[in-house]
Amino acid sequence: MNSTSVSTTHNATTDGTPGGAAAETAADERRRTVRAVLDTALAEGRTALTGPEGKAVADAYSIPTPAEGLAECADEAVALADRIGFPVAMKIVSPQILHKTDAGGVRIGLNSAAEVRSAFSAIVTNARAYDPEARILGVQIQQMVPAGTEVLVGTVTDPTFGKIVAFGLGGVLVEVLKDVTFRLAPTTRDDALSMLDGIRAADVLRGVRGSAGVDRDALAELVVTVSRLAADFPEIVEVDLNPVFASESGVMAADVRILLTDEQPAARRRYGREEILASMRRLMRPRSVTVIGASNEQGKIGNSVMRNLIDGGFPGEIHPVNPKADDILGRKAYKSVMDVPGEPDVAVFAIPAKFVAAALEEVGRKGIPNAVLIPSGFAETGEHELQAEIVAIAEEYGVRLLGPNIYGYYSTWQDLCATFCTPYDVKGGVALTSQSGGIGMAILGFARTTGTGVSAIVGLGNKSDLDEDDLLTWFGEDPHTECIAMHLEDLKDGRAFVAAARETVPKKPVVVLKAGRTAAGAKAAGSHTGALAGDDAVYDDVLRQAGVIRAPGLNEMLEYARALPVLPTPQGDNVVIITGAGGSGVLLSDAVVDNGLRLMEIPPDLDRAFRAFIPPFGAAGNPVDITGGEPPATYEATIRLGLEDPRVHALVLGYWHTIVTPPMVFAELTARVVAEFRERGVTKPVVASLAGDVEVEEACQYLFERGVVAYPYTTEKPVAALGAKYAWARAAGLL
Amino acid sequence: MNSTSVSTTHNATTDGTPGGAAAETAADERRRTVRAVLDTALAEGRTALTGPEGKAVADAYSIPTPAEGLAECADEAVALADRIGFPVAMKIVSPQILHKTDAGGVRIGLNSAAEVRSAFSAIVTNARAYDPEARILGVQIQQMVPAGTEVLVGTVTDPTFGKIVAFGLGGVLVEVLKDVTFRLAPTTRDDALSMLDGIRAADVLRGVRGSAGVDRDALAELVVTVSRLAADFPEIVEVDLNPVFASESGVMAADVRILLTDEQPAARRRYGREEILASMRRLMRPRSVTVIGASNEQGKIGNSVMRNLIDGGFPGEIHPVNPKADDILGRKAYKSVMDVPGEPDVAVFAIPAKFVAAALEEVGRKGIPNAVLIPSGFAETGEHELQAEIVAIAEEYGVRLLGPNIYGYYSTWQDLCATFCTPYDVKGGVALTSQSGGIGMAILGFARTTGTGVSAIVGLGNKSDLDEDDLLTWFGEDPHTECIAMHLEDLKDGRAFVAAARETVPKKPVVVLKAGRTAAGAKAAGSHTGALAGDDAVYDDVLRQAGVIRAPGLNEMLEYARALPVLPTPQGDNVVIITGAGGSGVLLSDAVVDNGLRLMEIPPDLDRAFRAFIPPFGAAGNPVDITGGEPPATYEATIRLGLEDPRVHALVLGYWHTIVTPPMVFAELTARVVAEFRERGVTKPVVASLAGDVEVEEACQYLFERGVVAYPYTTEKPVAALGAKYAWARAAGLL
Repeated sequence: MNSTSVSTTHNATTDGTPGGAAAETAADERRRTVRAVLDTALAEGRTALTGPEGKAVADAYSIPTPAEGLAECADEAVALADRIGFPVAMKIVSPQILHKTDAGGVRIGLNSAAEVRSAFSAIVTNARAYDPEARILGVQIQQMVPAGTEVLVGTVTDPTFGKIVAFGLGGVLVEVLKDVTFRLAPTTRDDALSMLDGIRAADVLRGVRGSAGVDRDALAELVVTVSRLAADFPEIVEVDLNPVFASESGVMAADVRILLTDEQPAARRRYGREEILASMRRLMRPRSVTVIGASNEQGKIGNSVMRNLIDGGFPGEIHPVNPKADDILGRKAYKSVMDVPGEPDVAVFAIPAKFVAAALEEVGRKGIPNAVLIPSGFAETGEHELQAEIVAIAEEYGVRLLGPNIYGYYSTWQDLCATFCTPYDVKGGVALTSQSGGIGMAILGFARTTGTGVSAIVGLGNKSDLDEDDLLTWFGEDPHTECIAMHLEDLKDGRAFVAAARETVPKKPVVVLKAGRTAAGAKAAGSHTGALAGDDAVYDDVLRQAGVIRAPGLNEMLEYARALPVLPTPQGDNVVIITGAGGSGVLLSDAVVDNGLRLMEIPPDLDRAFRAFIPPFGAAGNPVDITGGEPPATYEATIRLGLEDPRVHALVLGYWHTIVTPPMVFAELTARVVAEFRERGVTKPVVASLAGDVEVEEACQYLFERGVVAYPYTTEKPVAALGAKYAWARAAGLL
Repeated sequence: MNSTSVSTTHNATTDGTPGGAAAETAADERRRTVRAVLDTALAEGRTALTGPEGKAVADAYSIPTPAEGLAECADEAVALADRIGFPVAMKIVSPQILHKTDAGGVRIGLNSAAEVRSAFSAIVTNARAYDPEARILGVQIQQMVPAGTEVLVGTVTDPTFGKIVAFGLGGVLVEVLKDVTFRLAPTTRDDALSMLDGIRAADVLRGVRGSAGVDRDALAELVVTVSRLAADFPEIVEVDLNPVFASESGVMAADVRILLTDEQPAARRRYGREEILASMRRLMRPRSVTVIGASNEQGKIGNSVMRNLIDGGFPGEIHPVNPKADDILGRKAYKSVMDVPGEPDVAVFAIPAKFVAAALEEVGRKGIPNAVLIPSGFAETGEHELQAEIVAIAEEYGVRLLGPNIYGYYSTWQDLCATFCTPYDVKGGVALTSQSGGIGMAILGFARTTGTGVSAIVGLGNKSDLDEDDLLTWFGEDPHTECIAMHLEDLKDGRAFVAAARETVPKKPVVVLKAGRTAAGAKAAGSHTGALAGDDAVYDDVLRQAGVIRAPGLNEMLEYARALPVLPTPQGDNVVIITGAGGSGVLLSDAVVDNGLRLMEIPPDLDRAFRAFIPPFGAAGNPVDITGGEPPATYEATIRLGLEDPRVHALVLGYWHTIVTPPMVFAELTARVVAEFRERGVTKPVVASLAGDVEVEEACQYLFERGVVAYPYTTEKPVAALGAKYAWARAAGLL
């Protein structure tokens, strides 16, 4: 009897994870079982498992599938059905009979031994009549799949993030709606449960119209198990359980499909955390910088970099390298980097691409740990080999590369401007990075016009070596940096980024603008840096899982970066709107909901307290509408109340420009009251929308500089900034 | 036999609309039939129709429902089944038997006369056994509903828009996803078809996974019919066909539920189009304005209004009214409006609420057509009776009221500033209105700081009389106005607004910021002006149906208002991105998709033409990436190419600040080339995103003033403005 053995152990829906050696052994054993199946398939040159192989893998990992077995006679059929439990389905098994139903070879819902016996005989008779030549191997006896909600559980291998587990509802409608959510594999039980809530149709799983919901624990367990299976075996590129029937009594996968690969991912040199911090420390806090290709000629990059280093006030050593000059901008020039005195921390390259490799070799021999490669002409122009060559040299010597194809970088607290742009000197808490030089210029202009306090601006360009995870690792430790904002088009190593983000997010917010969100955008990314833009749905879910705040656009990234270091962290969910303009109150309420915030239900005593300050026709509740004709005292009294009451966690102010309370009067009183409370240790985020004539612009700048995030002519931006702060506080586990 | 007659005419899925008297008679007859059913129900004090009444209404309107009839004997059952067509379902009919299945009183899927005959006898026998006392009226014979996709078709009565028809998929999942779309009832066939495409799950109706789609014509016809039914009878407040089974062979409503009301909507005085234009013309182009409550005292509203009228340079007559002064700001003052010489066009009220009624009476007697009511203290503070009183006086005299509770209004081309704010003198093409005073101040400040050209700014406040549809009617005709932007929290008469919008949109774009989108926002609207905020899903669909561009937030409304009059109308869908920064190209591509625009597939000859101007490593295709180090000539050549080629319809430029091409050089060349082509009659919308240091701000202002919509530090805004222009062009039927 060449049958797959009937297993009934599959019904266990929990992994049963007892600690210690026993569990170790069980895990080892299941891996050995699957390993054997995979090796056989790959040895036979197959990358898709057969049905029985899929079933064997599922059984090994306790993935519930219908129990089944092959019966060669009616007695075996009855015995199998007895072991499986009624009702069962029965299907003819014959290599010649592909359309089993047409052949009268299928019976379902058989409830007794007698029915099974009679069905066996009928099926075999029908099959013989249908095709007298067919070789009949027997009749498959299969457990009936219990009714339930159709879901899909699967894994894919993403070029950026590797093994990803997917969950969604199954069926035609959901395929159309693409209502699926993703996490890195393996995933935890909590993450798996969050996936059940992460689809738009989540309520279906909880039960609607009085129907029972599904067994959430069993379903989450299945997601964890499948993610573990994919993670355990690099060669499993795809697992597809679709449909899985989920009901209040458990889950069962009706179909198991597993795809393999025999390709190995390329290795790259990896640096440990301490190595990263050591070289990054010297990059961001150098004592000595050398400029390869420094020049006296205006308009040359090597001239701009030299001037910016000098004009920016960098207090360390600056050593120009130029074989044809004795001095550059009054500094002694060296023929070769080998001649530069001391131990430079950074070599800035301002020479054409074709000369980079040779100079980099010297930088390596000199023991300089960081090469900042401004020149373009590498992978972004199709010169992949040239880029591979410099990467190989860098790996050989352990030199870290920034770029190539970048504008350079700023480290403001060191007064370091190693760029061909212009110096920037407003020191502050935000570190900004960009993959694109154009976006870097926008960062600089925005920062300058808004007076944003910056700790660093770094161009990443082609990311031949140093990338976002290295920078995250450093900025996470850098005491000057309170917030990190990154523009990126791809991630070279999504898992390393997630790991660095998870390390950093509990300490400080990380804002990401992921360009190439849309299909058109992704196509443009492909032609820009040769980056393979991942599927945005995967990026979105995985970045959220990593606790990153995703900015919807460039302007939002810049505004969040400006606002987040200014705002204190909220201590709870209760947001109160205090507004002098009812119309602003309505729009601010819209914005509160849009940004996932919660308008506080004002308790009666607090409502009475607010009412004491506002006209009888003003509206308490939330928004607190103090009405438009009120004097400064009304704004002040109500703001005080909001800051004073410990049940209120954040304030959104709506100011209306009137003769009675002019913009700067409002700004001064608000800044004063907020400062007074902060001195008393009451730190609540306060944001403001100022509706009025142009004087509100000055008032907003005044407020921003004093820790109140304020914007003119918009009700959305201040609330979006508050929303970003809340999103971070939640991701950091502070709420 | 007290049976509902069996109808087989219901199977007609088209209305069969022959023209002329016959159709008239058929329509009359169906109305008479339904009228009789409704009258009976209302006379009996019922507001829900019974099943048979619903069926009778459905039959009258040719709404396909299962055919059915009552059989008192087996012969009748067979005859009915023959007429209905097999298969049929059969159900016991007895007032005493509520649980038909428990009584063995239900059989389904009966396929022959013999089965029906045998089922009749079995059902009656079972019922007698179940309850010997039951009075058995017979057995209902019902057509089996064919399988298909479950959809719902219904109507509701919206407080703002009246009768609304709804369409969506039926079933549990869609209820969770709220995937439903709305239109005004009655709707046209085209609108009904657009509803089928307007749900997220639209592909299900078209057929997925190889399955056939539904009969779209039949489904659209059903939507039209149901919308017509609701529109024909004011007393029908709700129709609910749920589920309707739609398949490739037709549609059938399995359940019909109709709810009635006996309430009559309140009447309000309505003005005809010519009446509206006549009074609006005098309001917006007055020769004589009188200010009731004019004052010499600084800080008083009556003083601000007088000063603004004078300082704003209003060239017409200005007559202050103040019983206690001889002159106000050098103008002769009158004790009463009755004493004012000539025929004032506008009376601006700057007196407390309690004095308004008496003064309005005089304004009416004097024959002044417009009263601008600045004072607050009416409905917004709960003084509904006071507001009703002034509305009654206004209606009596035919005086149109603007307000109360407003800042006033500007008519810039008349140099008219009838507000307590400050004059605004940048004449231009955009008319801005706001329901809220605070938002009005934000409009003023934004306009001033950006130099937005304005034709009017109008406060609507409580909208006791004049509202958005009056203003739309006027601005639609006003030759100075090229674009209308409106902030609103509610609409007093949604149908009048839609009618006015439909009249206006083909001539000029209408942008709407609807505040109170979200549940929290709607609640705040309720407490602000006593407005009943409608369901946002209805607003969204109906505003789109009216061709209105909906701004997601205040800042977008202001930016669209600023940009739309500047941008020429595109002549086709082909958008081309030309960028000096590849990184901007990616973000601009994202924005193009986000805003519903289409990146042109560049034909090979055009691609070659672009490649001739850009470096070999630059990327042609779309975006055209000219790369960052290029001189002004490359920008100019590629922009020329985009403007020259008639297959290109709109340009999105991505500028990257470099030494080679500084911001103002880019701005000047772009403005010059665009102007040159416009002189040659080539008008294509051009928008630009400038990434660079602060000099890009001046460059953007320069470009904006010359017809290129340009923004710094954002890739989203310029494309959003272009998207708004496209949305209008589509709504206006220009694409």
